[in-house]
Amino acid sequence: MRKFESLALRFDGEKIWVLDQMLLPQKKIWLDATSPEKMIEYIRALKVRGAPLIGIAAAFCLARLAESGETEAEYRKAAESLRASRPTAVNLMNAVDKLTAFRPGQMNVRDIVELAERFFREDQKLCENIAKYGAELVLDGDGIITHCNTGGLATAGVGTAMGIIRRAHEEKKKIHVYIDETRPLLQGGRLTAWEMAELAIPHTLICDSAAAILMREKRITKVIVGCDRIALNGDFANKVGTYGLAVLARHHGIAFYVAGPYTTIDLHCESGADIPIEERAADEVRGVCGAFGEVVWAPRATPVFNPAFDVTPAALVSAWILDKGVYTTEDIKRGGLIECTQS
Amino acid sequence: MRKFESLALRFDGEKIWVLDQMLLPQKKIWLDATSPEKMIEYIRALKVRGAPLIGIAAAFCLARLAESGETEAEYRKAAESLRASRPTAVNLMNAVDKLTAFRPGQMNVRDIVELAERFFREDQKLCENIAKYGAELVLDGDGIITHCNTGGLATAGVGTAMGIIRRAHEEKKKIHVYIDETRPLLQGGRLTAWEMAELAIPHTLICDSAAAILMREKRITKVIVGCDRIALNGDFANKVGTYGLAVLARHHGIAFYVAGPYTTIDLHCESGADIPIEERAADEVRGVCGAFGEVVWAPRATPVFNPAFDVTPAALVSAWILDKGVYTTEDIKRGGLIECTQS
Repeated sequence: MRKFESLALRFDGEKIWVLDQMLLPQKKIWLDATSPEKMIEYIRALKVRGAPLIGIAAAFCLARLAESGETEAEYRKAAESLRASRPTAVNLMNAVDKLTAFRPGQMNVRDIVELAERFFREDQKLCENIAKYGAELVLDGDGIITHCNTGGLATAGVGTAMGIIRRAHEEKKKIHVYIDETRPLLQGGRLTAWEMAELAIPHTLICDSAAAILMREKRITKVIVGCDRIALNGDFANKVGTYGLAVLARHHGIAFYVAGPYTTIDLHCESGADIPIEERAADEVRGVCGAFGEVVWAPRATPVFNPAFDVTPAALVSAWILDKGVYTTEDIKRGGLIECTQS
Repeated sequence: MRKFESLALRFDGEKIWVLDQMLLPQKKIWLDATSPEKMIEYIRALKVRGAPLIGIAAAFCLARLAESGETEAEYRKAAESLRASRPTAVNLMNAVDKLTAFRPGQMNVRDIVELAERFFREDQKLCENIAKYGAELVLDGDGIITHCNTGGLATAGVGTAMGIIRRAHEEKKKIHVYIDETRPLLQGGRLTAWEMAELAIPHTLICDSAAAILMREKRITKVIVGCDRIALNGDFANKVGTYGLAVLARHHGIAFYVAGPYTTIDLHCESGADIPIEERAADEVRGVCGAFGEVVWAPRATPVFNPAFDVTPAALVSAWILDKGVYTTEDIKRGGLIECTQS
């Protein structure tokens, strides 16, 4: 496998390294994720995160395993475990399925490696396309709110929602970005705030609950978010809080865009009702924990509901910004998403 | 002045003590807030909080100052400073105005002390009435979401929104309470979670952004919140995040109730547009700080927007639960709030 490097994932010719995203931005520590066991551990702990990146990281891991001369049985077992490491983001499942789609006894190391390499290069291109199509929708003077982190850390390229914002900024459009801090794991406050500063894009960090007042004051004029899984009817799962933003946008007459590559589309999900929502540990809500320290403010026994994602129905989406273009509600209704997965 | 004691405020016959609410629930430390300087400091730092309680605490402070033989000039100066210590909650201003409503040269210590004592006793009664009227709206099987903290810590009595919940629970209604953690200062995660556990009311703590998914799943059937200022048209200010909850409730067809005593009504505000919204320090959003510790996760220079409150328009309110009864939109339109302030 050839060497590759993105903002949060690299292969140095021998080992696969992931940038520990739970420690950002305070600490930049690369972890050896060459073994499937380690990769699974890091995906579960959100050290590797971002739907597109998880898929590519798993693919690298499997390709390296194949190159190491592992048996087909062991390879398939590792693939199965990797596939199950996060239940909501579908890019992971899509990538693993493609890497195990050969007939029993027909495992070909070169094919597997080539496919993994292609996923990486392809994601960079997909991000570029999403950025290009999405930026056309951004107007001079826009106040854009985004949720979670969808930039260079979450993909192999410039990102999805953040790639669009980045492109619009590069095109000299005057924009201001409002960043939802994105409780409980604070991907907005930690990662997006950091990436925005690195890119010198004007931005303001807010508590998730302050989005509504900004919409009311017309300081927010567009919502652009990424996604972890898109169902065929256009419903999609994304970081918890996205659905609330969509409802707020509708109430205030603000455009709501979701951005993602075709690898995020799940041909097996008819609608959002088919998307499983991962529930995570109560301690994530009782306090916070990271390289910045660890504190717990709630009484230790407090019962918690902590869904990692929520589903936004297609009816609340103004348009889907995919790598093949901007899809309207009509495009989705006439089966546009199936078309989008066919190259 | 006679001795008094509530959950977070007491007068021991000599000094006025406030329970430091920024340290709860980890530490229970009472602070001497007898001097106006200290009281102002504690109100600004949210060590004393809850719109009704702030008004009573300021009244105690002024009454004690009057008893100490302070000149009228100094008394009025202290009153002025106390009045300005928090710009949004109006109970404070209403209390101070009443305690300074005598003619120049006519300062009467006994009158001032009696008024302050009456505020305390009255608030307990107001809470009881709100609880009684509000509990009538709660049904068996309700899932109730509340925001911030509106219980015994925020008032001299059983609270406003939480008083209603408490009463419904005492009436053996089967209810479940969803507690918004209420970023940035986590009054839900720290204070409401603690009070609910003390009262043995079934509850679940959530991140503010998870309310929408619970409404969609019909696990939340009612919203009940408190308020910091009610304008004459029924618009009201409350902890940031309340307005978003109101929009979500409307979208999902869920009843949205605001509860408060008449002391929270501002006869000088025609509408929510007249209510000033306090903006607080950026560091509250860049991290968290309390008796539980202090951490900062965002890059130190990240620009922040941190409004402490937002305004919910009357159009999104199903009913106003006041100490004189439940007011409908029609009641408000025919000047019900003015009536409510007249005993």
